[in-house]
Amino acid sequence: METHRVQWQELRRLCQRLMTREGMSEADALVCADNLVDADLAGVESHGVSRMTNYMKRLRTRVVDPIGKPETVRESAAGIYVDGKNAMGMVVGDYAMRKCIEKARESGCCFAAAHHSNHFGMAAYYTMMAAREGMIGFCATNAPPNLAPWGSAEKYMGTNPFSISAPTKEEPITLDMAPSVVAMGKIILAAKLGQKIPEGWVVDRQGNPCTDPEIGQYGTLLPIGGPKGSGIAIFTEILCGILAGAACGPHISHFWKDFENPQNVGHVFWAVDIDRFCGLEYFLAEIEKTLGEMKSLDKTPGTQEVFMPGEIENRRRARRKAEGIEMPEGVYEELRTLAAQYGVPFEI
Amino acid sequence: METHRVQWQELRRLCQRLMTREGMSEADALVCADNLVDADLAGVESHGVSRMTNYMKRLRTRVVDPIGKPETVRESAAGIYVDGKNAMGMVVGDYAMRKCIEKARESGCCFAAAHHSNHFGMAAYYTMMAAREGMIGFCATNAPPNLAPWGSAEKYMGTNPFSISAPTKEEPITLDMAPSVVAMGKIILAAKLGQKIPEGWVVDRQGNPCTDPEIGQYGTLLPIGGPKGSGIAIFTEILCGILAGAACGPHISHFWKDFENPQNVGHVFWAVDIDRFCGLEYFLAEIEKTLGEMKSLDKTPGTQEVFMPGEIENRRRARRKAEGIEMPEGVYEELRTLAAQYGVPFEI
Repeated sequence: METHRVQWQELRRLCQRLMTREGMSEADALVCADNLVDADLAGVESHGVSRMTNYMKRLRTRVVDPIGKPETVRESAAGIYVDGKNAMGMVVGDYAMRKCIEKARESGCCFAAAHHSNHFGMAAYYTMMAAREGMIGFCATNAPPNLAPWGSAEKYMGTNPFSISAPTKEEPITLDMAPSVVAMGKIILAAKLGQKIPEGWVVDRQGNPCTDPEIGQYGTLLPIGGPKGSGIAIFTEILCGILAGAACGPHISHFWKDFENPQNVGHVFWAVDIDRFCGLEYFLAEIEKTLGEMKSLDKTPGTQEVFMPGEIENRRRARRKAEGIEMPEGVYEELRTLAAQYGVPFEI
Repeated sequence: METHRVQWQELRRLCQRLMTREGMSEADALVCADNLVDADLAGVESHGVSRMTNYMKRLRTRVVDPIGKPETVRESAAGIYVDGKNAMGMVVGDYAMRKCIEKARESGCCFAAAHHSNHFGMAAYYTMMAAREGMIGFCATNAPPNLAPWGSAEKYMGTNPFSISAPTKEEPITLDMAPSVVAMGKIILAAKLGQKIPEGWVVDRQGNPCTDPEIGQYGTLLPIGGPKGSGIAIFTEILCGILAGAACGPHISHFWKDFENPQNVGHVFWAVDIDRFCGLEYFLAEIEKTLGEMKSLDKTPGTQEVFMPGEIENRRRARRKAEGIEMPEGVYEELRTLAAQYGVPFEI
């Protein structure tokens, strides 16, 4: 497969420019572009600039409001309740997490819940903002349905990811995961490639085990640990759908298909100021010791290195910042088409 | 197997009396007894009064301090940093969650982190305290090692459970789970019964798949979703071990075997006042609708009813409160022995 090597700053500038052409402010467009490019840097390409064509269509059709400004509609010493005003999810996420960090500095911790939002990109982006400020960051979002409550074969909850991040003396340690065994993208890919899939990834529409991805792609993803992952997804709906005042799973409109009805996705964010608990200096010394102990444990047969959550992504981010991002031809051409369409110089 | 039917209030009274004989105050002993009996009411017998003999030995040897009084050593508008003073874990948990609820009422949310604590019983007990006050409750604890970081075959993290609970118009909905596929108790039981165990529960000491529980009971439990469950367990250590200023997995002394070194277990607690976000009335109406939708989805073949997290436990609790708790002969006799030893009337 042909690829192009692109520099992250140029890629970010291109995405930013494109989004301003649909009316977004320079600052808001930068926040969105930064989130997408950071996903590509980290190797989470599913949440990177490959989504630009869709984001641009959502802005163009105004199913997402390019000039929406998130507003805090209820505020307490350690809580903000945010109306996302149907802005891009990244704009809502950046607003809410920034405010959480600021208030956590005063109060010890702060929790934010946001409704009237949209797909917010890579969750780790927000939690790492907090970690870089010497805090524990947490966030979660709901999403259109892909998972069934345990015992049911009907999709209801989204693949509702959550992320948590903590500072270290070097880069933050960051978990960013969905409660499903795999992403639906993996099943769609197997169908394209004509491959079988292992039992345990997905069930068919009647709830039977399924190893044929042609059937599986219309089925329901299985949660990790059965009722455990199902419970995590249900509580993410409760936090992001209900507590945040947004829609729940099946009432969220489709990101790829529906350009008429705003999604009304909900998110929650939470920052804890380490200095109000064990103290940052102690924390950094202890986490270095603890992660060091874990990394030097005996390995399973065939394992070269024990990786901490987000460690592979951190290394990839550093390497790609230095050496550029390898971009598949298809994504590169999509961006070239967008640039031509909007009369933006294609300089990546 | 012979069983005895006992009333929960009488069982609680017996456990409370026993613990006061080791110097605990009436109030502290009641908190501990209530947690244990609530686990038996809910059907979580592993965390119920079957542990009384061990708790009493821990009090008697003073490896747990019967008169330890948890203290808030650092406080902010939405945070408390607690020294558990080596009290019973339930005393620390009750203190921290009560204070969280109180401060969340003022500030919107509150987060507590506690060190110098001990095994705190059933996690759901604390989160349901918050749910009954119209809040979202969250808590987690670390524990002696049973899980390896993904890629390693050596135990490091505990089976670190977490719980989250939310109010409904009836009983709270509550998730209480460990990030391992099964509890070590299940493997020990299979070894006792001479049964094979399925692949995917545990690996042997070299990290190889293991279906023989005789070997597996000395191995390492597998996390749900591979690196996902491992990541959850690692972050629980970071929160409960490091942020809370306690010990991490392998540095926690053994609950059943070590009667000389205090455990220094850590916990975190968190309460969010729903009224500062979407509002309690809205929340209760929406959660009723959402849970109702989930319960009426199509079922998988063989499923009679789709249960929400904690729903089975809620029903069991109501039934056992009305009809009594069926207690196995072994546990009944252990309690009788304790009662005789401490000169407490055996009235259950």
